[in-house]
Amino acid sequence: MVDLNFKNGIIPVAAQDNETGEVLMIAFMNEDAFELTLKTGCVHYWSRKNSRVWKKGEESGHFQRVKQILVDCDNDSLVIKVDQVRAACHTGFRSCFFRTIDGTTIGKKVFDPELVYKTGDTTAESHSKSSQK
Amino acid sequence: MVDLNFKNGIIPVAAQDNETGEVLMIAFMNEDAFELTLKTGCVHYWSRKNSRVWKKGEESGHFQRVKQILVDCDNDSLVIKVDQVRAACHTGFRSCFFRTIDGTTIGKKVFDPELVYKTGDTTAESHSKSSQK
Repeated sequence: MVDLNFKNGIIPVAAQDNETGEVLMIAFMNEDAFELTLKTGCVHYWSRKNSRVWKKGEESGHFQRVKQILVDCDNDSLVIKVDQVRAACHTGFRSCFFRTIDGTTIGKKVFDPELVYKTGDTTAESHSKSSQK
Repeated sequence: MVDLNFKNGIIPVAAQDNETGEVLMIAFMNEDAFELTLKTGCVHYWSRKNSRVWKKGEESGHFQRVKQILVDCDNDSLVIKVDQVRAACHTGFRSCFFRTIDGTTIGKKVFDPELVYKTGDTTAESHSKSSQK
């Protein structure tokens, strides 16, 4: 196993759709999140905002099942190829990267977040990654 | 233009091969690196180790030409689809993610780093991203 370099305790992770190659989200892991990911086969992240480990899909059921974990040359970032249940983004899009930098939506909405999340508060502006459960 | 959320002054970026969808590297940008990327059409990053902006390929000539910039739902991470000149990794592989987490090499070496970098010091362990020029 490669010895990872957790800078300031965390490491950036890109979750990539194992089938399509689409990057679904970028988030961070601490050592605990990484170990839980290995142990369970479901991706866990570290919430910088809430200072806690969270399991992707813990509220929505939109889990990310690990297919392959790749590590970079410096051992300080990961690409995890996943089977994504339904969609990665809490706003209803398959990928969190559903917009170009000029704000144009290019992604496809695949679920209604108000039917999935209890709060009903589903705007990108009011959500943080910590609530992408 | 989407107003980006630079947490602690930086934002994680995944550079993705525009043709193959392969994730080539993950690094960080500060605002200056982002602005230079927009202005020049070549990807620039922020080196956390050396505290400076660097242009990908500035030493090797292995530039990343911007094809599309995607932003996530929280405006705090980017995917940049690029035309990668030759290879992204300073170790000679096309992608920095040339190993699985168990250390198995799965990538293909496409150049000899000793012929490209002047130092001749090309091991992954001794290099930081700041030297991936």
